[in-house]
Amino acid sequence: MKKRVAVYAGSFDPFTLGHLDIAIRGASLVDTLIIAIGNNPAKNYALSYEERIEIIQDACQKISNFEIKLFHGLLVDFCQEIGANIILRGIRSEKDLSFETPIALANKKLAPEVETIFLLANPELQFVSSSLAKEVAVHNGNISYFLTPLAERKIKQKRKER
Amino acid sequence: MKKRVAVYAGSFDPFTLGHLDIAIRGASLVDTLIIAIGNNPAKNYALSYEERIEIIQDACQKISNFEIKLFHGLLVDFCQEIGANIILRGIRSEKDLSFETPIALANKKLAPEVETIFLLANPELQFVSSSLAKEVAVHNGNISYFLTPLAERKIKQKRKER
Amino acid sequence: MKKRVAVYAGSFDPFTLGHLDIAIRGASLVDTLIIAIGNNPAKNYALSYEERIEIIQDACQKISNFEIKLFHGLLVDFCQEIGANIILRGIRSEKDLSFETPIALANKKLAPEVETIFLLANPELQFVSSSLAKEVAVHNGNISYFLTPLAERKIKQKRKER
Amino acid sequence: MKKRVAVYAGSFDPFTLGHLDIAIRGASLVDTLIIAIGNNPAKNYALSYEERIEIIQDACQKISNFEIKLFHGLLVDFCQEIGANIILRGIRSEKDLSFETPIALANKKLAPEVETIFLLANPELQFVSSSLAKEVAVHNGNISYFLTPLAERKIKQKRKER
Amino acid sequence: MKKRVAVYAGSFDPFTLGHLDIAIRGASLVDTLIIAIGNNPAKNYALSYEERIEIIQDACQKISNFEIKLFHGLLVDFCQEIGANIILRGIRSEKDLSFETPIALANKKLAPEVETIFLLANPELQFVSSSLAKEVAVHNGNISYFLTPLAERKIKQKRKER
Amino acid sequence: MKKRVAVYAGSFDPFTLGHLDIAIRGASLVDTLIIAIGNNPAKNYALSYEERIEIIQDACQKISNFEIKLFHGLLVDFCQEIGANIILRGIRSEKDLSFETPIALANKKLAPEVETIFLLANPELQFVSSSLAKEVAVHNGNISYFLTPLAERKIKQKRKER
Repeated sequence: MKKRVAVYAGSFDPFTLGHLDIAIRGASLVDTLIIAIGNNPAKNYALSYEERIEIIQDACQKISNFEIKLFHGLLVDFCQEIGANIILRGIRSEKDLSFETPIALANKKLAPEVETIFLLANPELQFVSSSLAKEVAVHNGNISYFLTPLAERKIKQKRKER
Repeated sequence: MKKRVAVYAGSFDPFTLGHLDIAIRGASLVDTLIIAIGNNPAKNYALSYEERIEIIQDACQKISNFEIKLFHGLLVDFCQEIGANIILRGIRSEKDLSFETPIALANKKLAPEVETIFLLANPELQFVSSSLAKEVAVHNGNISYFLTPLAERKIKQKRKER
Repeated sequence: MKKRVAVYAGSFDPFTLGHLDIAIRGASLVDTLIIAIGNNPAKNYALSYEERIEIIQDACQKISNFEIKLFHGLLVDFCQEIGANIILRGIRSEKDLSFETPIALANKKLAPEVETIFLLANPELQFVSSSLAKEVAVHNGNISYFLTPLAERKIKQKRKER
Repeated sequence: MKKRVAVYAGSFDPFTLGHLDIAIRGASLVDTLIIAIGNNPAKNYALSYEERIEIIQDACQKISNFEIKLFHGLLVDFCQEIGANIILRGIRSEKDLSFETPIALANKKLAPEVETIFLLANPELQFVSSSLAKEVAVHNGNISYFLTPLAERKIKQKRKER
Repeated sequence: MKKRVAVYAGSFDPFTLGHLDIAIRGASLVDTLIIAIGNNPAKNYALSYEERIEIIQDACQKISNFEIKLFHGLLVDFCQEIGANIILRGIRSEKDLSFETPIALANKKLAPEVETIFLLANPELQFVSSSLAKEVAVHNGNISYFLTPLAERKIKQKRKER
Repeated sequence: MKKRVAVYAGSFDPFTLGHLDIAIRGASLVDTLIIAIGNNPAKNYALSYEERIEIIQDACQKISNFEIKLFHGLLVDFCQEIGANIILRGIRSEKDLSFETPIALANKKLAPEVETIFLLANPELQFVSSSLAKEVAVHNGNISYFLTPLAERKIKQKRKER
């Protein structure tokens, strides 16, 4: 039977406990999970590409079947290039679904053989997002509810450097 | 690697073109797709259990890795009984998601090892539901937009018998 | 140019101030507005078909271009039968939209030449529905926020008769 | 300053861990929380009025400022009768909000001095509802995620009696 | 009877197949459809005003009753200036409705005689938006699912020029 | 009994009739309402901090139990600093709720003793927002539906100064 390869793509700036939950659950559904880090030169990331990799490597130690890859361009092109047939997305709310819907439908048009599957976020992590974590960090709030210890340290360090 | 067995459960009274789309796409993601027909003695079905099986068998001819099973009781108990680790659900809208969310979360509590995955309905079939098909049929409307030819014939025949 | 005939269909049991608002605004958009009263023998109406007509006649006195018709069967068949090319719907909320969407899409499939148009409910009448009006009436609440004086009288009278 | 009295109304058939969470948090916001049990003779409850009281009494032992009352009729009339100025509602999702909105707006029209306040459900209890608990119980599922131990016992016992 | 003039306003940067669908269907409902191109000097358009006109002219060849106009300022002022009594909007999702609702309600306050009517997007074009088309184009994706051939050529050409 | 102090925080740039409605209703529920004006040096406000205070002072004359405070940093830290135990939020729509939900849940994690309570916006003011008011003002539209007379004057004056 053909291998199932799923792509879980994002900026992961930083990778959160919410991302980790989806990655663990998604990895259990497929042969290989590709965590694809978007790196858009025009975007302003809090963490460097290398730091984001380091955090993911550290967070996902218990996942045996994942790989990290850099991606740019269209996600469906990337999927075809690396032989992935599944796009994995986590949804925390109806709002997330309404954001994801046109993208998933467009991807289906552009690459019908790639299937987008959605997992519901763990409700205890429903409030977690990279952007909210960074906003809380700016104000010295407790970001351990959002991030792994390594990500927490990296984000706090960035803050000090400024 | 452990086998991936997904359950796609419903009344399928009748199985629609929307169900078929989800079944085909879902089957491509797993080793075995179990189409689980709910048969609740207290419920009033338009079609008998046998007729519903016949329609699904006919519709899914091109799916090589599916089985039909009768189910009653809790879906997670059924999953554990047959060794399924995935529940497959199609969603047509935010309303569907909001209906599915508490069920998926409760199932996760009851059986954490069973994962619910969601596929977005094909937008061209977004309006399709068993109940709307039956309502259109009651008024002699064209149900070929909703159903396979066999399901269409069965539903029309029921109507004549009344 | 071809005439624009819109159908505004419902049980209108009873016609509310919300219905009236949509009817007035809808009538201003078309040549003729058909207020189509569904009369399903299997349904249990609070008011008779005649009473519902009387209330609408009274409420819509200031609308010059409307007609009341009885309808049963599929709404699109009714539209074709009477030469209507527009279905008029009021929406009070996203929930209403999600209810209306599959119906509108199915109608479009069944009769592509009939267009469904949506008007947003007046926010001051957003809470108004026939069913809530009846529930408030059961408990002797003030239903003048929901209904025209005639509808109010009819509904209160029904309550006394029981 | 005038006393703040809030009403938290429902069928509470049975009172769930979700209800308990809202009751505790709501009670902390007001002087007195009235837990108002609807008892509609036309409705078919799983538990008697007395059993429902018993479960609430037991669950809310740690709340010092609550009272249980029977209510029928319009909620706003009940509020005025007992001198309550707040209606307390928990919301688990956008769907809950869309259900509550017309009711809250109608209540505001009927009794402008009574304010409806909403608390977000604890996300860990987002899936909890009386009806889902009863459905899980019918199939001998684990309802300890939904109910207090006493409510669990009562519901299981009912099931055996049938 | 007074003429029905509808305004369909947008940046149309570029006009998409989704816009075309709404324009065709909207034009069939009214005497004249004004396609009103917003041209805000502060905004950064991918296409010039002239290019956007050219694409619309080309796309709408089969619509007999439309005109293109430049608009700036408040949409309701523009409507009053040109004698339009209808604002036409397409909605693809509940999210679109929630975006449109405050605007439509504000417009109603500012100009009660102008009615906003909503048409549901064709579900096959539900994913189509100008912004997603441009994003796909940036990555050399297939934008023929989003745009007319002329718009496609214009957008691709822009990309080469950069 | 412990005092109930609620914080109603925002940019209030400017304070609208919608804000005023929530402030009046919120103040009636608590001992003290703190209107907390966010003043983020990185943000570009239409009105100065002093102007925003002046507008709120003027608008809230009839509220006897409010105070205005400047706030920056995390809202929950601010609450703890000033001894507030309630965060007050108005919601106009499901969209507002979906925006507020992750913030409220994160705040609950960060400060479990602070409760967020939601009031439904008055439907007649559902369309009102600071940003829409400013956009209408830019085009010389009638902003008296959005703002108090003083806020209206201030915003118009700003526009002339540019």
